Amino acid sequence: MSDSLVCVKDFEKYARLILSRNTLDYYRCGAGDEETLAHNRKAFSKYKIRPRCLRNVANRDLSTTILGRTVKIPIGVSPTAFQKVIHPDGEYGTARAAEAMGTVFILSIVASCTIEELGKAVPNGNNWLQLYVYADKEFTQTLVKRAEESNFKALVITVDTPLLGRRLANIRNKFVVPKHVILPNHMRGRQLFNPSSDWNDIKWLKSITKLPIILKGILTAEDAIIAADVGVDGILVSNHGGRQLDGSPATIEVLPEIVKAVGDRLEVYVDGGITNGSDVFKALALGARMVFMGRAPIWGLAHSGEEGVKKVLDIVKTELDGALAIAGSATLKDIEPGMVVPNSYYSKL
Amino acid sequence: MSDSLVCVKDFEKYARLILSRNTLDYYRCGAGDEETLAHNRKAFSKYKIRPRCLRNVANRDLSTTILGRTVKIPIGVSPTAFQKVIHPDGEYGTARAAEAMGTVFILSIVASCTIEELGKAVPNGNNWLQLYVYADKEFTQTLVKRAEESNFKALVITVDTPLLGRRLANIRNKFVVPKHVILPNHMRGRQLFNPSSDWNDIKWLKSITKLPIILKGILTAEDAIIAADVGVDGILVSNHGGRQLDGSPATIEVLPEIVKAVGDRLEVYVDGGITNGSDVFKALALGARMVFMGRAPIWGLAHSGEEGVKKVLDIVKTELDGALAIAGSATLKDIEPGMVVPNSYYSKL
Amino acid sequence: MSDSLVCVKDFEKYARLILSRNTLDYYRCGAGDEETLAHNRKAFSKYKIRPRCLRNVANRDLSTTILGRTVKIPIGVSPTAFQKVIHPDGEYGTARAAEAMGTVFILSIVASCTIEELGKAVPNGNNWLQLYVYADKEFTQTLVKRAEESNFKALVITVDTPLLGRRLANIRNKFVVPKHVILPNHMRGRQLFNPSSDWNDIKWLKSITKLPIILKGILTAEDAIIAADVGVDGILVSNHGGRQLDGSPATIEVLPEIVKAVGDRLEVYVDGGITNGSDVFKALALGARMVFMGRAPIWGLAHSGEEGVKKVLDIVKTELDGALAIAGSATLKDIEPGMVVPNSYYSKL
Amino acid sequence: MSDSLVCVKDFEKYARLILSRNTLDYYRCGAGDEETLAHNRKAFSKYKIRPRCLRNVANRDLSTTILGRTVKIPIGVSPTAFQKVIHPDGEYGTARAAEAMGTVFILSIVASCTIEELGKAVPNGNNWLQLYVYADKEFTQTLVKRAEESNFKALVITVDTPLLGRRLANIRNKFVVPKHVILPNHMRGRQLFNPSSDWNDIKWLKSITKLPIILKGILTAEDAIIAADVGVDGILVSNHGGRQLDGSPATIEVLPEIVKAVGDRLEVYVDGGITNGSDVFKALALGARMVFMGRAPIWGLAHSGEEGVKKVLDIVKTELDGALAIAGSATLKDIEPGMVVPNSYYSKL
Ligand SMILES: Cc1cc2nc3c(=O)[nH]c(=O)nc-3n(C[C@H](O)[C@H](O)[C@H](O)COP(=O)(O)O)c2cc1C
Ligand SMILES: Cc1cc2nc3c(=O)[nH]c(=O)nc-3n(C[C@H](O)[C@H](O)[C@H](O)COP(=O)(O)O)c2cc1C
Ligand SMILES: Cc1cc2nc3c(=O)[nH]c(=O)nc-3n(C[C@H](O)[C@H](O)[C@H](O)COP(=O)(O)O)c2cc1C
Ligand SMILES: Cc1cc2nc3c(=O)[nH]c(=O)nc-3n(C[C@H](O)[C@H](O)[C@H](O)COP(=O)(O)O)c2cc1C
Repeated sequence: MSDSLVCVKDFEKYARLILSRNTLDYYRCGAGDEETLAHNRKAFSKYKIRPRCLRNVANRDLSTTILGRTVKIPIGVSPTAFQKVIHPDGEYGTARAAEAMGTVFILSIVASCTIEELGKAVPNGNNWLQLYVYADKEFTQTLVKRAEESNFKALVITVDTPLLGRRLANIRNKFVVPKHVILPNHMRGRQLFNPSSDWNDIKWLKSITKLPIILKGILTAEDAIIAADVGVDGILVSNHGGRQLDGSPATIEVLPEIVKAVGDRLEVYVDGGITNGSDVFKALALGARMVFMGRAPIWGLAHSGEEGVKKVLDIVKTELDGALAIAGSATLKDIEPGMVVPNSYYSKL
Repeated sequence: MSDSLVCVKDFEKYARLILSRNTLDYYRCGAGDEETLAHNRKAFSKYKIRPRCLRNVANRDLSTTILGRTVKIPIGVSPTAFQKVIHPDGEYGTARAAEAMGTVFILSIVASCTIEELGKAVPNGNNWLQLYVYADKEFTQTLVKRAEESNFKALVITVDTPLLGRRLANIRNKFVVPKHVILPNHMRGRQLFNPSSDWNDIKWLKSITKLPIILKGILTAEDAIIAADVGVDGILVSNHGGRQLDGSPATIEVLPEIVKAVGDRLEVYVDGGITNGSDVFKALALGARMVFMGRAPIWGLAHSGEEGVKKVLDIVKTELDGALAIAGSATLKDIEPGMVVPNSYYSKL
Repeated sequence: MSDSLVCVKDFEKYARLILSRNTLDYYRCGAGDEETLAHNRKAFSKYKIRPRCLRNVANRDLSTTILGRTVKIPIGVSPTAFQKVIHPDGEYGTARAAEAMGTVFILSIVASCTIEELGKAVPNGNNWLQLYVYADKEFTQTLVKRAEESNFKALVITVDTPLLGRRLANIRNKFVVPKHVILPNHMRGRQLFNPSSDWNDIKWLKSITKLPIILKGILTAEDAIIAADVGVDGILVSNHGGRQLDGSPATIEVLPEIVKAVGDRLEVYVDGGITNGSDVFKALALGARMVFMGRAPIWGLAHSGEEGVKKVLDIVKTELDGALAIAGSATLKDIEPGMVVPNSYYSKL
Repeated sequence: MSDSLVCVKDFEKYARLILSRNTLDYYRCGAGDEETLAHNRKAFSKYKIRPRCLRNVANRDLSTTILGRTVKIPIGVSPTAFQKVIHPDGEYGTARAAEAMGTVFILSIVASCTIEELGKAVPNGNNWLQLYVYADKEFTQTLVKRAEESNFKALVITVDTPLLGRRLANIRNKFVVPKHVILPNHMRGRQLFNPSSDWNDIKWLKSITKLPIILKGILTAEDAIIAADVGVDGILVSNHGGRQLDGSPATIEVLPEIVKAVGDRLEVYVDGGITNGSDVFKALALGARMVFMGRAPIWGLAHSGEEGVKKVLDIVKTELDGALAIAGSATLKDIEPGMVVPNSYYSKL
């Protein structure tokens, strides 16, 4: 069966067939008219790869270091909510697949398992915890502690969600998390988002933990510079997969501005619309140290749990490996900036 | 029922189902090939929102002052003709909804109620009167007087209609206003438009009234400067919803040129194609002090009269509120010019 | 019936229903992949009209002088072959409609009537003759004489046809002119086109006639300058309705380059894709002294002969009249260059 | 039958009807999402032809010299694998058709006949051999020798294939070459591609043969300059028909950068998406000395073997001849750079 699925799109098609309308909509949908959702994907076509030839690419190596730790592929898993809705393997499956592929897994604060459970289930994983800085600082501090104790390697603070984006499909479907899925990290009832959060919260966070801090959802050079000044360790350029503010730019087109502003001061990652190896190659050439995927692993999970996520990661890895070879880059370090250009490069004749 | 309508498009779809072909066409259609009509809408995609993060947006405020009066939301109702054709509530419903939402209602001179009736029905509304400067100055002066006496707050002079645009759908349908709808402000038979109208008429108008004067339909910096020189109080950038001259630009793309030319001398508003909160945010960031919607309230009116209009306004308000929050702006004053950029900003890498 | 036809497109739709496949294809089709054919039309959307307001436009006048003669509308009829295939009225009908509307009719050298017949049928028309300069100079000279004697007002030399463009539809249909249509001006068997024709032929032509000479089919500033140097009286910017070389530019986008190069030395006209008043307005604002339409009158002819052509011309006239009024131009002289701009004007913010 | 096929697209449509899904997919498909495959074709629309008129084009000549040898048309046949899968005529048919048309045929190293067989079957052809530089130098040297002895005129080294591109259609179909087709040049089992190949291999190749060397698959000025420095005789700008790296640019948009960099030091050719005479004209005007087609001859072969290939070449020749005439170029030398411009030429007004 899964033999006939040869690219991420195939897994998405499969998921569209088997998931219920409500569930599918929840994972697929974006905010408002879903223009940013679509644009995330289409914007990759605005860049072209200029492959270099006749370079010895026999011994390829896709590994790199992220926050001082080696990852085998520069393709990680973005945090997405309550994955047991998708498959009984849930977050365990996704995290184990990431571990098997030698890459980063980010646990959403609204996961369907606790921080501790995930930590125990995948003890050697390169697991990061995504959370928000809550108005209730004490509660926040507890979460950070729990992450430290469960051997998480970094904290990912999502900064694009002072409130939930308006996702029409969910409003229409009156989407609620199925009863059998518990959100143990976060007491039901507590307010998930904190609209009064500001840069002082990040400073405070730095003061209470030694874990590296990543800001997820930064979309302007201006904020990237503040982030660097505040001393965060990384930025994950993201528009929440088009789920927060319709009309915000595609992440791949934002990436260069962030890299230019702070690329030498902290690590820059990107997510949004990445579904194949050419996308990854483009992101890396435009300055990302690593990319993340949100929905792609979900489609794999829907197909066959942990195995499916691994399959998805493996496909994109194979595609990236091929792109590297054909573009003349044996390793990620061999990717040169001029290898990816915006279309305007060519329209000038 | 109306619970399942979660965006303006939903109300439009609903209206398309229940209105008669003739009526629907009349409200929906544009001039000629309807390129400008379509472009008004599509042009919003030519701008992207650059959200700023980690700003405290817990206490949001969507209010602003327009011509010295506070409005609770920067989203008003453009003048559209004989609204009783759409729903028995007619202009009363629309004006009451606007009042309830704390915003401006502009009464068309070809309304299905008189100036006085509207004034009495919604005495505390922020009502403006849209009219033309007629060849018959005396008649014009009477209208102005009546507006003053009925407590209207401003006069909106539509300057894009020396003659009626060629709306093929209406010509095909031989559209006429249903018999039961009277146009009491304007004697049937009198010529509605005045092709000999010129800037002297505006000066004359200023001389006969203390009401603020808004010119609706200005599309060039050149005319905006004349308007400022003549001393009008505001400009409503508009192409009459694509109903006058097919081939004229989308209003959102014209807005920056007007703001740049006269933004510091008078208030600049815009209408045309606005259907959601991201549109409003873009218009405000590009310099509009307020936006107006013509058809959107009509679709609400078609759905459930006054209630429907309120619903439509409320949806767009909610969307704008969300956009503000996610873009890091607690108030309209916090919207910064750099928060909205044309796509070319990104295509330059 | 024809009452329900309110724009040129309606006439085209009608023609598509009633004409035989072969005939329709012949008139509709373009060369190769028909990209230039489509682009001629679409390119008008690349320009926007910036209407000026509050100018007295009560007394409008669409007339101008062309080659020293007054035309009532700046919209003439391009030469198209054997019109009796379309309707028994044939060229008489088209020429009479043009005369009735006070404008130019260009007779194709492959008309379905002779020069003399047309001259007699429409003696007071502003008729021009389109021809090629044949290898057989004597024959060419005879044609010119016949045009002079039949009171034609100008000669239009088509310079884009050294050989017939490759129109796949015609090749597929093995299109031949129906037997009952004779091409009396040009002996069957004689070679219609002359690939050895060059600028000396134009000089020679000037030496043998006092009739004004128009070159039809010039698409570059370089050739326009040679034309001006040689002393021709006008240029009709044309790509033969997309029927000669697929991949050549849309005429409306070529127009500015020609106007800039020679607009002050000779009259510049344009044809190609013009189907409504906004198109005409754009062409005039971009510097054309007059426009021509090839297929639009044919669709009118197909509908109801002379009457139909008149109807088509009248519709476009009405549309142009409306465009003038709304754009603030009482006369053609009032059209200012800045009133039409390429889209790039707006994409720069 | 074939009378009704009047352009390359017609042959492609025919092939789509008669070939098996597997075979069709193999020849049609591209890598990944097939964006580059589609873009190769669409990118031709990004250039426009500016035809010059009134130049004597009566005596046209489409010949040129390539590597010192005359070709009658500047349109050759790119190497494509095992052509007997398509038609029993296989490579013989294609090569004979090329010879009959007086142009170059490139034999793929994975042909369905040996070098010697092709050499004997088409002894007077302008045959080139495409190969890779294998890790096994001895084997490579044998191939070169065999090409020399079989009177091949040039070697084409494909440099865009360190490994096979990811062609999803083939993976899905589990495509294998039909059993009855042998690949005699290349022992099954041997590794076809050599990811460790580099510029030293090209130098080595030059040292062991006097045959001109063409590098096929160069897509950057940087590599073109190295190629010139190394002393190769020609570059065939190619992205392998979109079959290697999805996301690489269209070849026609890459061409100008290569021509600018090395056009005066070696011969530059191009393939990718060429299907008609306007495409060829554009490529020549942008600086290609010759173009090649990969799939177009295959569709001809599928239709009627050698005869079909000839037909396809003849159609494109006729189209190019027409384009030359209408653009005012009697010979290839008369094509001037300014005759083809990117669309930006026009969008600047
Ligand atoms: C169903 C779903 C749930 C998500 N939940 C979270 C979340 O809990 N926290 C968070 O920071 N981002 C969340 N995201 C955003 C993802 O982390 C990521 O930014 C986005 O999906 C990337 O785009 P892609 O799906 O196109 O790869 C979610 C996205 C989806 C699709
Ligand atoms: C049915 C209809 C009637 C209108 N009537 C008037 C009118 O009487 N006076 C006027 O100035 N504008 C009139 N307009 C234009 C609107 O005021 C407004 O400019 C336009 O509808 C804004 O575009 P939108 O519908 O996309 O929001 C009318 C528009 C419509 C759709
Ligand atoms: C059916 C047909 C026949 C034509 N015959 C001639 C002709 O005999 N001589 C000529 O110079 N142009 C001829 N043309 C080109 C037209 O004069 C004109 O340039 C073109 O139709 C303008 O484009 P439009 O049809 O989009 O208005 C012909 C065009 C068509 C469609
Ligand atoms: C089915 C197929 C097989 C091919 N085999 C080879 C090959 O063996 N060696 C090679 O250098 N290029 C090969 N190519 C690439 C072609 O030489 C050529 O670059 C490409 O087809 C040009 O694009 P076009 O098909 O759009 O004309 C192949 C292409 C196709 C479609």
